[in-house]
Amino acid sequence: MIANDPYVELERRFARLSAVGRASAILNWDRSTMMPDGASDDRADQLATLGVIAHEIIAAPDMPDLLARAEEGRASLDPWRQANLREMRRSWVHESALPADLVDARTRACSACELAWRSAKKDADFKSLLPTLSEVLNIMRRVGEAKAAALGTSLYDALLDEFEPGGRSAHIDTLFAELRSFLPDLLGRVLEHQKRLPPIRPLDGPFPVEAQRRLGEELIRLIGFDFHHGRLDVSAHPFTGGTADDVRITTRYDETDFARALMGVLHETGHGLYEAGLPRAWRRQPVGNARGMTLHESQSLLMEMQACRSDAFVAFAAPRMRAAFGKNGPAWSVENIHRLYTQVVPGFVRVDADEVTYPLHIMLRYRLERAMLAGDLPLADLPGAWNDGMRELLGIVPPDDSLGCLQDIHWPDGGWGYFPTYTLGALAAAQLFAAARRAEPGLLEAIGKGDFSPLLGWLRANVHGKGSIATTDEILSAATGSALGASAFKAHLESRYLSA
Amino acid sequence: MIANDPYVELERRFARLSAVGRASAILNWDRSTMMPDGASDDRADQLATLGVIAHEIIAAPDMPDLLARAEEGRASLDPWRQANLREMRRSWVHESALPADLVDARTRACSACELAWRSAKKDADFKSLLPTLSEVLNIMRRVGEAKAAALGTSLYDALLDEFEPGGRSAHIDTLFAELRSFLPDLLGRVLEHQKRLPPIRPLDGPFPVEAQRRLGEELIRLIGFDFHHGRLDVSAHPFTGGTADDVRITTRYDETDFARALMGVLHETGHGLYEAGLPRAWRRQPVGNARGMTLHESQSLLMEMQACRSDAFVAFAAPRMRAAFGKNGPAWSVENIHRLYTQVVPGFVRVDADEVTYPLHIMLRYRLERAMLAGDLPLADLPGAWNDGMRELLGIVPPDDSLGCLQDIHWPDGGWGYFPTYTLGALAAAQLFAAARRAEPGLLEAIGKGDFSPLLGWLRANVHGKGSIATTDEILSAATGSALGASAFKAHLESRYLSA
Repeated sequence: MIANDPYVELERRFARLSAVGRASAILNWDRSTMMPDGASDDRADQLATLGVIAHEIIAAPDMPDLLARAEEGRASLDPWRQANLREMRRSWVHESALPADLVDARTRACSACELAWRSAKKDADFKSLLPTLSEVLNIMRRVGEAKAAALGTSLYDALLDEFEPGGRSAHIDTLFAELRSFLPDLLGRVLEHQKRLPPIRPLDGPFPVEAQRRLGEELIRLIGFDFHHGRLDVSAHPFTGGTADDVRITTRYDETDFARALMGVLHETGHGLYEAGLPRAWRRQPVGNARGMTLHESQSLLMEMQACRSDAFVAFAAPRMRAAFGKNGPAWSVENIHRLYTQVVPGFVRVDADEVTYPLHIMLRYRLERAMLAGDLPLADLPGAWNDGMRELLGIVPPDDSLGCLQDIHWPDGGWGYFPTYTLGALAAAQLFAAARRAEPGLLEAIGKGDFSPLLGWLRANVHGKGSIATTDEILSAATGSALGASAFKAHLESRYLSA
Repeated sequence: MIANDPYVELERRFARLSAVGRASAILNWDRSTMMPDGASDDRADQLATLGVIAHEIIAAPDMPDLLARAEEGRASLDPWRQANLREMRRSWVHESALPADLVDARTRACSACELAWRSAKKDADFKSLLPTLSEVLNIMRRVGEAKAAALGTSLYDALLDEFEPGGRSAHIDTLFAELRSFLPDLLGRVLEHQKRLPPIRPLDGPFPVEAQRRLGEELIRLIGFDFHHGRLDVSAHPFTGGTADDVRITTRYDETDFARALMGVLHETGHGLYEAGLPRAWRRQPVGNARGMTLHESQSLLMEMQACRSDAFVAFAAPRMRAAFGKNGPAWSVENIHRLYTQVVPGFVRVDADEVTYPLHIMLRYRLERAMLAGDLPLADLPGAWNDGMRELLGIVPPDDSLGCLQDIHWPDGGWGYFPTYTLGALAAAQLFAAARRAEPGLLEAIGKGDFSPLLGWLRANVHGKGSIATTDEILSAATGSALGASAFKAHLESRYLSA
């Protein structure tokens, strides 16, 4: 019952695939926010089954023929359909590279390992994670090998490609080398510079969760988060999930420190606005998906780091913070709050890191995950290698593995090849924000009044609305005038952290 | 790739079907509790796609052959597998009886009619519902005809069979005739009896939602609801959803009246305990499902009506109610609260009805839906027939159709053949509770101390753990010594409402 037009039949199948994927996205969100812990096996079985069903749709025996026939007629398609067809092919290559039993094994192993990770992290007990994490690593190696063969890349690049289409470690190595030769020196200069400034006054809590939630909601509503198509909830590890029409962002609250949750919410809002701004006509097709994790991370970092830690935004937000918690006094001045928000302190935890040290955390993870996948670093040696790397890159060593190699969900959850996209995203964020300011000269002034529409309008036109019609570098080049580089990021850091 | 053993292959397929169904159950729960309203089209597309996928699994072309071959080898299967095979056949008959265009037409007609019903009910405007309800009725007749042919039953019994497997209207007619000759007379005597008692004192609110939620949680935890495998949330219409390992019950809170939400929570807890107690080894197969709506309703009514409106439970709960809301005084005495919980008042609205009048509401709906399906009652005459029936059965006539024939969602939503299971459930609840008390003589005394374990243990062994291994009547006979009848229900009503 294949429609005569192979492209039309492909759209029909990918629409079904999209529905299964969107259902899984909600079930994943529920697992991290709502699900009682006794239901984890049940949920793992549901998600594994949906994964197998999705796999069967895309790896159907007649799919190669359909794709080939559609590609023959490619010239007659408009640019969106041409790009959609290219993305279908890309999905097919990734998905058909893996046998069904490997897909199933990956889903189940990651579910089990994520669960083990929750208690291992709580107890700072790396050993308890070893059995399930070994299983995940073995499976990810098999996944990487299978995809490398299909894509004609290295094992690591094959995993990276899933998160950042076309991303290659050779390019990352170049960009990271540039940062490696710049950041430690900059960090020293920033720490020196900070010493010469008046001391930062701490903000005294407690900050009730409910007041934090209300403040976060108020600010992200202003920024453009649409609660008619989204929610804000609590999870152990903040994330953006759901679908473009149903964006689910999460945070976690600490009553002694509201800034962490607030900046987290602003960060996830950047992700959420990207999803919500994807091209409406293509929501249920591959070309309507976000381009990749570099641009996704660029959107969260652009919102959190570039926009919401700016002087302009802090000046707007400070009175709202004072009102939210009924506070006042010199600690609550715009200047002091901005100082707090741009303080550079080498620390153990990636998600709490400032902009200057964050890439150093990423370089460590990038180095370690490549070594583990290559078999050069036995899993049992990970805590030691982690601590050595922290000493080398940041000059500090975590007191336990909970603040060390157990801090992130990514490896337990199968997210190997993901970490570098955070820093690629930081570079892209700086590059995009600089371009947006050139294009919209009043942009920062508007943000200072709580008006994000010039920024959001520019992002929608130049990033969100592009979906996957072009590559990351094509989108960046069209939006900023050049492919991804480090210069805008370096300029941003020097300007923000050395000139105050 | 069919396994050699057709039964094993069937288990594999039905496990997949179960996973898709359980995923849909969570997505349905989310739709009613968490989903932002802008996501309804997105969610409808996800659920429709999962529905089509489920249909394709069960209506696969080789399914008749697989079933036939497995049934040839039936004698070599153990009793659980034999019963599982029977339930697989049952699912297949129901699912394959309908042509795809009829399934599609039903979905669309019910969606349109449910939407029309919302405003028709609000405006008490039955005429505005006529076009879409006619369409639903026509389609349900076609559904019933198709299923009647497949099942070899009457049209009505074929619709009933979906909710109550093996249920037959001939049996319902006998039971309802017995209730018809008993209830109106009993109602008169109860109203007379109540007049002779001292007046009921109202409980003065407001009752803060958070205090209500905590009280409900405290009580259902005692009863045996396992928050490790379940949640309690808020929705516009209370329901029990989710899966056996992940039971999601909901309620709605009214700050002027805590009893409604509390009794609702206890009611849904009965449903939830049934789900949670289904046989663990068969959770992902048809035989591990709840037997049908008669037993399902029996479990909610047993918990709410038999157990939690007993003197014993009220004596236990009253001090906890006083503590929860910081109240005291004569209105909060055990006696007064019990009076409130067992007050009989003929009213217009089924969901607010007491135990004595509830079956009269059901008899009316059962009589009317059969007449409409048979073509004996033109739809335009429904409001008149409704009001005549209310006058005859309850002695009151609703002031408008909003409190009359427009009050329930069932007919607009395609739930024809469902209504009688409420009263069959009430009969079964009384019969099961009486049997449990005979088997566990200290059962009520234990409930009076907040200990539900004798009751729950008996229910698990005699009802919940049976899944669908036997018919409703077989399960009832084994548990109580006789098939479903009205005598225990009649004895219960006389004892509770005439002897105080």
